[in-house]
Amino acid sequence: MADTRRINRPQIEQVAGGGLLDRRALLGTGMLFAGAAAASGVTGIASAAAEPLGNDPWSLTMGAPIPPYSTPSHFEAKVAHLSANVGGIGTSQARTPHHMLDGILTPNGVHFVVARAGAPDIDPDKHRLLIHGMVKQPLIFSLNDLMRYPMESHIRFVECGGNSAPMWSQTPVQASVQGLHGLLSCSEWTGIKLSTLLDEAGVDPKASWIIAEGADSVTMQRSVPLAKAMDDAMLVFYQNGERIMPWNGYPMRLLLPGYEGNMNVKWLRRLKLTDAPVMAINESRQYTLLLESGKAWRFYYPQEVKSFITRPSPTMQMPAPGYYEISGIAWSGHGRIDKVEVSADGGKSWAQAALQAPVLPKALTRFRMPWNWSGQPTVVMSRATDEGGNLQPTREKLIAERGSPRNTANVNGFPMNHVNSISSWGIDAKGAVSHVYV
Amino acid sequence: MADTRRINRPQIEQVAGGGLLDRRALLGTGMLFAGAAAASGVTGIASAAAEPLGNDPWSLTMGAPIPPYSTPSHFEAKVAHLSANVGGIGTSQARTPHHMLDGILTPNGVHFVVARAGAPDIDPDKHRLLIHGMVKQPLIFSLNDLMRYPMESHIRFVECGGNSAPMWSQTPVQASVQGLHGLLSCSEWTGIKLSTLLDEAGVDPKASWIIAEGADSVTMQRSVPLAKAMDDAMLVFYQNGERIMPWNGYPMRLLLPGYEGNMNVKWLRRLKLTDAPVMAINESRQYTLLLESGKAWRFYYPQEVKSFITRPSPTMQMPAPGYYEISGIAWSGHGRIDKVEVSADGGKSWAQAALQAPVLPKALTRFRMPWNWSGQPTVVMSRATDEGGNLQPTREKLIAERGSPRNTANVNGFPMNHVNSISSWGIDAKGAVSHVYV
Repeated sequence: MADTRRINRPQIEQVAGGGLLDRRALLGTGMLFAGAAAASGVTGIASAAAEPLGNDPWSLTMGAPIPPYSTPSHFEAKVAHLSANVGGIGTSQARTPHHMLDGILTPNGVHFVVARAGAPDIDPDKHRLLIHGMVKQPLIFSLNDLMRYPMESHIRFVECGGNSAPMWSQTPVQASVQGLHGLLSCSEWTGIKLSTLLDEAGVDPKASWIIAEGADSVTMQRSVPLAKAMDDAMLVFYQNGERIMPWNGYPMRLLLPGYEGNMNVKWLRRLKLTDAPVMAINESRQYTLLLESGKAWRFYYPQEVKSFITRPSPTMQMPAPGYYEISGIAWSGHGRIDKVEVSADGGKSWAQAALQAPVLPKALTRFRMPWNWSGQPTVVMSRATDEGGNLQPTREKLIAERGSPRNTANVNGFPMNHVNSISSWGIDAKGAVSHVYV
Repeated sequence: MADTRRINRPQIEQVAGGGLLDRRALLGTGMLFAGAAAASGVTGIASAAAEPLGNDPWSLTMGAPIPPYSTPSHFEAKVAHLSANVGGIGTSQARTPHHMLDGILTPNGVHFVVARAGAPDIDPDKHRLLIHGMVKQPLIFSLNDLMRYPMESHIRFVECGGNSAPMWSQTPVQASVQGLHGLLSCSEWTGIKLSTLLDEAGVDPKASWIIAEGADSVTMQRSVPLAKAMDDAMLVFYQNGERIMPWNGYPMRLLLPGYEGNMNVKWLRRLKLTDAPVMAINESRQYTLLLESGKAWRFYYPQEVKSFITRPSPTMQMPAPGYYEISGIAWSGHGRIDKVEVSADGGKSWAQAALQAPVLPKALTRFRMPWNWSGQPTVVMSRATDEGGNLQPTREKLIAERGSPRNTANVNGFPMNHVNSISSWGIDAKGAVSHVYV
């Protein structure tokens, strides 16, 4: 039978080495893969079907009743936190499985966590927020009080300042992107602009800092510049529609869009207006970066522009040569992602990926690039540029700026922070994907 | 101390009866409530704080360790499905608690469900999708095959055609918005454009319908016009980042943005191209609307423009007169929401609410309106207009079009479908909120 829809279909244009294909084919009607079919019969992905389906066992019985609160299929049990030191003394961590997710949102079940003393079991009816210090009128709020204020929702990432520290190792750490980059998540956060509450308390013009304190048993403290607090800072209650998860700060946390994760103080109970930072351990030592030169970076807040490819990525296995989509995420604490370039030949040539709309500031941005893998060994990479013109650096450039890697620790003995260099995934002739340095 | 930030702050302007305040104050720096404070000391919401916080018990002990998959605090156990006939024979339902959510996304734990035979326990490695019928080449796909195709993500609502049926009762049903409007949810869905797969199979130019069939034990079938399938229809695998919940169609479902829920066939296993609809019970009887005139509406797909206020809403209690935010959600199967108007005097006067960005097509849109409740009994309402110029109708207008209400059933004995009339919430002198007809 005639297929008039195939007339005038665009040819699949190679736009860079290693089989990268024209992204514009994805932006229109999604007919690229069908174009492949027109040329060759079928894409080589689907199989020709000879006869109708039989009945699978699950089509022959009643299914599971609806629970009060749904959780994923038992076949997805691997989509879970990758955790370290859970229940131990000191900092515990749980990483987001980005290689098993798609889209720009992180489901609440697997939002990353860094906690110094677990999640406090806060009774929301008894919890209070105090605003005091250099203000005209100290104020105290119950959660019911706060529910009456004007709210906003914004889709924003939160990333630990120590995310991607394994990329600082002298040899490539063999782990999934969950292990390498999993201290990063993105949610729709809903709450009150912090400036609304600060204006009500009446900020002393001589105040320049806010000390934010959590209600967990380490009473985590961080200093926030007043300018950020009056700009886009929020006091948030909801995460992807529902109240914040206990490990992410229930019943309320500070949200400082784009700033390193530990400043977004969880279980927030106190905001003290001051004229100097508190110099808590998190700012005086742990999230300070001592360079080889002897100079140190302190109070460097925004997470720099970064990206990585989630599919294909290390620990995965490519089933066969042929058509694929290369997909990944990009973000910047400085604003929107302007472009993401992808290489499928180890950085020799680059082509611009399609950015999925809406591209939001200080949010994960999903990029996609069609690809025809020849079956030859190669290396895939991505590099992002943000709207401020900041380009994600090569590993060599970052080392030149910060000093040589000492496995995963900097000279302080703490993991290197703010590592945002390009990630490179090697693919061997059998389709196995691994972490490589190029 | 002087507070220079208060200079030139806009006055709080009343824009309609019943205490509705200028929404523009919300769009800028969120200083409206602080403006209230400037006029009167404090808003009357927060309390003046005399001394620092003491330590609550949860600040004195180690908290809970991080689980593999996070779930909400036990203090939020009420944020759960409102379910009917779970485990029984026939259709079971679970409704989304919109009065306890905020933002535009529905967390996966409480996405609404209508299921005819529970959730089948599908092994994703064994599940297949068949495309056949009037095509050049019938194709069969495994999930691993499909993971290689180009994907897209879109934030879109899904709403049951029978949502809001209780609004058709002769007297106002006293229930929360979960009971009244809870068969509605909104997620970021990720998957493949259906046109990509149909183009690969090669659609016969004489085909005009697609029969979509699910793998549950009732092998649910619906007929989809080919034009919709080639437009924005998708085969989706991910819901808010993670694989679809078992009750929402794991491992894959059809997404027909804006079309009534049951057409978005879950557990999709088969797409058959035909030149006529299948006339399954869901389209020949259950989702057909027989009017008093004897005429029937069949194959009327898009969910019409609708909105309701989530806060305050029935079963809630206003703590005291004073400042509040009125907040709610609006959506249309025809595209974007253009505006939402709010009344706080039972429909005598209306003012335009602020729409929260991004306003996406066929997605929930959050609206917000500042309000000063005098403490007098009143009625709050919202009415939405979509970009097609469609205005949400009054209850009287809908009755005039469709015939008089017979409690919650139409003349077929089935619940009235596609009810999108304006919702009215009464507030009494004690602040109790209830469902009223005006």
